[in-house]
Amino acid sequence: MAEKLQGIFTPTLVPLDAHGQINETELRRFLSWLIASGVHGLYPNGSTGEFTRFNEEERRRIVRITCDEARGRVPILAGAAEANVTETLGACEAYAAMGARAVAIVSPIYYRLTPESVYAYFAEIARHTPIDITLYNIPMFASPIDVPTIHRLAADFPRVIGIKDSSGDLAFMMRMIAAIRPIRPDFSFLTGWEAVLAPMLMAGCDGGTHASSNAIPEVTRRIYDLCRAGKYPEAMQWNYRILALFDTMLYPFEFPDGFRAAAALRGFDFGGGRLPQTGAQKTDRAEMTRVLQCILADFELVGPPPEGCAPRTGQPAPGNLEARLEQVVFEVMHELQKRGIF
Amino acid sequence: MAEKLQGIFTPTLVPLDAHGQINETELRRFLSWLIASGVHGLYPNGSTGEFTRFNEEERRRIVRITCDEARGRVPILAGAAEANVTETLGACEAYAAMGARAVAIVSPIYYRLTPESVYAYFAEIARHTPIDITLYNIPMFASPIDVPTIHRLAADFPRVIGIKDSSGDLAFMMRMIAAIRPIRPDFSFLTGWEAVLAPMLMAGCDGGTHASSNAIPEVTRRIYDLCRAGKYPEAMQWNYRILALFDTMLYPFEFPDGFRAAAALRGFDFGGGRLPQTGAQKTDRAEMTRVLQCILADFELVGPPPEGCAPRTGQPAPGNLEARLEQVVFEVMHELQKRGIF
Amino acid sequence: MAEKLQGIFTPTLVPLDAHGQINETELRRFLSWLIASGVHGLYPNGSTGEFTRFNEEERRRIVRITCDEARGRVPILAGAAEANVTETLGACEAYAAMGARAVAIVSPIYYRLTPESVYAYFAEIARHTPIDITLYNIPMFASPIDVPTIHRLAADFPRVIGIKDSSGDLAFMMRMIAAIRPIRPDFSFLTGWEAVLAPMLMAGCDGGTHASSNAIPEVTRRIYDLCRAGKYPEAMQWNYRILALFDTMLYPFEFPDGFRAAAALRGFDFGGGRLPQTGAQKTDRAEMTRVLQCILADFELVGPPPEGCAPRTGQPAPGNLEARLEQVVFEVMHELQKRGIF
Amino acid sequence: MAEKLQGIFTPTLVPLDAHGQINETELRRFLSWLIASGVHGLYPNGSTGEFTRFNEEERRRIVRITCDEARGRVPILAGAAEANVTETLGACEAYAAMGARAVAIVSPIYYRLTPESVYAYFAEIARHTPIDITLYNIPMFASPIDVPTIHRLAADFPRVIGIKDSSGDLAFMMRMIAAIRPIRPDFSFLTGWEAVLAPMLMAGCDGGTHASSNAIPEVTRRIYDLCRAGKYPEAMQWNYRILALFDTMLYPFEFPDGFRAAAALRGFDFGGGRLPQTGAQKTDRAEMTRVLQCILADFELVGPPPEGCAPRTGQPAPGNLEARLEQVVFEVMHELQKRGIF
Repeated sequence: MAEKLQGIFTPTLVPLDAHGQINETELRRFLSWLIASGVHGLYPNGSTGEFTRFNEEERRRIVRITCDEARGRVPILAGAAEANVTETLGACEAYAAMGARAVAIVSPIYYRLTPESVYAYFAEIARHTPIDITLYNIPMFASPIDVPTIHRLAADFPRVIGIKDSSGDLAFMMRMIAAIRPIRPDFSFLTGWEAVLAPMLMAGCDGGTHASSNAIPEVTRRIYDLCRAGKYPEAMQWNYRILALFDTMLYPFEFPDGFRAAAALRGFDFGGGRLPQTGAQKTDRAEMTRVLQCILADFELVGPPPEGCAPRTGQPAPGNLEARLEQVVFEVMHELQKRGIF
Repeated sequence: MAEKLQGIFTPTLVPLDAHGQINETELRRFLSWLIASGVHGLYPNGSTGEFTRFNEEERRRIVRITCDEARGRVPILAGAAEANVTETLGACEAYAAMGARAVAIVSPIYYRLTPESVYAYFAEIARHTPIDITLYNIPMFASPIDVPTIHRLAADFPRVIGIKDSSGDLAFMMRMIAAIRPIRPDFSFLTGWEAVLAPMLMAGCDGGTHASSNAIPEVTRRIYDLCRAGKYPEAMQWNYRILALFDTMLYPFEFPDGFRAAAALRGFDFGGGRLPQTGAQKTDRAEMTRVLQCILADFELVGPPPEGCAPRTGQPAPGNLEARLEQVVFEVMHELQKRGIF
Repeated sequence: MAEKLQGIFTPTLVPLDAHGQINETELRRFLSWLIASGVHGLYPNGSTGEFTRFNEEERRRIVRITCDEARGRVPILAGAAEANVTETLGACEAYAAMGARAVAIVSPIYYRLTPESVYAYFAEIARHTPIDITLYNIPMFASPIDVPTIHRLAADFPRVIGIKDSSGDLAFMMRMIAAIRPIRPDFSFLTGWEAVLAPMLMAGCDGGTHASSNAIPEVTRRIYDLCRAGKYPEAMQWNYRILALFDTMLYPFEFPDGFRAAAALRGFDFGGGRLPQTGAQKTDRAEMTRVLQCILADFELVGPPPEGCAPRTGQPAPGNLEARLEQVVFEVMHELQKRGIF
Repeated sequence: MAEKLQGIFTPTLVPLDAHGQINETELRRFLSWLIASGVHGLYPNGSTGEFTRFNEEERRRIVRITCDEARGRVPILAGAAEANVTETLGACEAYAAMGARAVAIVSPIYYRLTPESVYAYFAEIARHTPIDITLYNIPMFASPIDVPTIHRLAADFPRVIGIKDSSGDLAFMMRMIAAIRPIRPDFSFLTGWEAVLAPMLMAGCDGGTHASSNAIPEVTRRIYDLCRAGKYPEAMQWNYRILALFDTMLYPFEFPDGFRAAAALRGFDFGGGRLPQTGAQKTDRAEMTRVLQCILADFELVGPPPEGCAPRTGQPAPGNLEARLEQVVFEVMHELQKRGIF
């Protein structure tokens, strides 16, 4: 039996060239850096990878490059959702042939389906797939997958080996684990909400797929290792720090542009995104990127911006984590308010 | 200048064959029947046409068949949304070449974008499109388009010639009309919510794109004509009747399966859908289809099912519209409650 | 049998004195002005009357003053919801003794109840009340009342004689009318959403309870009369005008402060509200009140503010309704955007 | 300076007699049992205590009884929200005089206020209160209190000493702690969502107010003690067990009837509630109460029901926690599906 999926899987961003096309050279360099930085696996064609903004051929190319570049160093969990069951099964076959460890399939998008239809959809795929499947629950964007449906799928189909949940609802994660682990100890529970990564791991999650791990793979890995070692208080300290970064990458930007901006600060050329921007947006993003750089500088992962970081309240002594956190939270909240998000 | 878009545009359903592929013969027969039944235009690749469940090549084929079959008898409004701006522009060019009157482009799906990004997206398309564009606002499924954004787009781009709104919110429709008609008298306002078709027309809508017109094109046309003639009370009587049918097609089924079932009752072979069904669902749908047939029999558009219609309360004399409506509403509410929707 | 409830019922605002207490003199003057201005009935202790911000004794006093001042000139629909069934029944008895025509009882607030509990609640009251009851559905603030529950209550209890619905959902109103009118022709359907007053009346509503009628009783009455006379297009023109005013009173203010500000412009001293305000809010409201005054000046119901109205685009000739409406909509949208509401 | 609020505060249920009146004898017996069972404080007039279903005089009586019965053994946090600021301040004074440690004030209910108005409301109270205040955020029922508003209040008013948050959103709790603890180390963070009690404590919460502690005070206390001792994995095991109970008390019942039913099983006569019930509901609740008794029997806190517990899948050996949890989760999910909740 294949090994259980666990650890930090990066839902990889895709660098684009000046024409908006996949920048293969930079993508390979980025993937190898992620592996070297300690992530346990790679997850191309996730929401972070903007799978809906690429076409079918491009999605296949992204997985092909990823499998090829990984060369077995880490397992690949490939996003395989296509327009319908037939084409999704085609992608499953293709990704199996490329050497992916498993595929992740988002619940049907656009229309909101009932639990019975969500079951029927995954059941039809699970019956015919040549590769293991993880369900992908992201209720803000796709049809929700409820606990009884996950239980039915886990009970009926050995090919369904896990779920990635991006709801961020810890009680929901616990309900899933309580319902399914007894009948399927091999089933993987992955969280997509790093805001609460350490508590999720304490509650029994096997790992996660985190957009933030594109920018700070070392830190998400560290939290994982600390939790596995039972060092929860220390893990929580780091979790607080990535929360401030996560909020800054997530809310003031269109997703996943904040994550692209932060990963770019680590030394990669991600190019523009596939979404057009107005002039006002470009100005905003430049400003927000400076805030991101200041936060990453606090992690000592990059230097501060040339113009320095915004004057901070008082003089937080080095090591005065709380005062620095407060400052960051404040800047972020202020940005959110300006943009009318809070 | 091209004529303003107005009247009933049918968001056409797509018949499938036994292999789940487009049944071109039946599609052509269906389209010609719709035109003969009085609809003012055809709208392929809408939500009713399940555009997200076909691939790019299929979407183009559907528009090609539609333009070819229409042969200029009615204008074609072609759904042109693709994975990104470049591919959407490719579709715009292709549909212009096929002879479509205009394209409809849904606001970005999956991710929920801010108004500024929605503007940037449509602006980029409007700058380069060779064919007129109608915006498509369907906030339950896609990024909402708010009134200030519609106003900006209408003010900045002559190529943006209308909006289809499926929110069903009459006050929102009125806000759009009040804001945009003074600066763009040529701009078309189309409602996608036939539940309130007559009131929408009274409020100044130019027409609509209605899933129901796949099943009862004569009736939606009649409501339109009655409203244009100022006969609102009579239009409302018909509106009440389609509301009962609409609710039955919409709520107890997965969208658009109820509309497929009703249109099939008019004598077309729509085949199974692209969404897998469980056995329980198949049984449910057969039962609901009998209810649909009874409603359509009340319209005298089809005969009753062989086993007759469910025993009705009392003996509503022919012409006793209210008693029959009450009966229908009751059956529908009962079904909805059984399914836990109400 | 008592006459059916119909027409425009004003959900009356409550003037307060400098100590935040009920200003009885001004309240009486205001109520008599409303009656003289043509409203068909008065509705004290509604949401507009801020029933939750008064205590039980104050609520009784408000109804007592209202019944006394009306002296039978118009029927009184008294809001009677109290903390529990026993106290609500006590209010029913008190208001019956004061001469109210009927009471309005909001669905249970704070907790969100299931339809079965909503039924049980109203059923218990309906069994023991000495006065007719209208249900009050306001799903944004209280437990929703669904169509099957309304049908059960209408079928089981003659004392339940109507519903006031503030959802603003026209299709929902039509569903209620289709389900209940056949079994209870005496049942009243009142809409609380004047944004779509004329379409609601065209769809068969018997009238409405409109916060706006505190400020423009003549106009809501005119729309009602035009609809009763079958003059829907003219009614719609007025409906568009009150929509612009309604949006300005509703969105940039805390409810019902915008309605209080507009009614004050008609010559009444409403005092401050019961809700504390920050200095920033006071400044904002003064500015928004000037916009309100400009809109009311367009209705020729008040003069313009001393400093004049904001420079308008072009020079809308008198009678150029559309250009003036566009201007108003614009100002409102601009305010809403500034406040982050759109 | 007064001691910081911390630990488990029980939001106390109120026993009623056969006439629906406060059963003082049973209330006193219940409160003393809670104190003896180890809870750190009592919280009368919370949502669990159905504060909106009692009148002002009853709310005062409940606090008076609670303070009197506690006799200083544990601190009292008294719910003090009344219809408006003046009356709320009156309650603050009364509860201070009765010896309460602090009051909890829910954000304004019914109307949904903007952050600026929420600030103005609490600021006005905080300026004049003679007793410490905790904010109460319960966004499903009342105006939400956002992080910047909490920060403003914490910065401006020493009398604001904490927040009770019932959103259940762990990331939101972390954002609050990160923003406010640096400037107010004395500020208490209490969670109202015991579904994730252990993770909340690990994240830095000072304690919680948990409806479940009415039924299982020993268990909520045990989780608190285990977390304070750093024994998170053991705390999580207990957290999983209360989650299954919590879901059964919360979802299939009207809140807080499931908690009343479970607390009654511990040997108290809670009487009927203040909410009327239909016959169907009474039957349902009797059935659900048997499920509750089976769960409590698993905790070895009560015996099983006379008719035994529903036949369980397989024969979970004693101590096989996971199999028994799975069984419970299943029964609950099945009930929820029957009731259309999932």
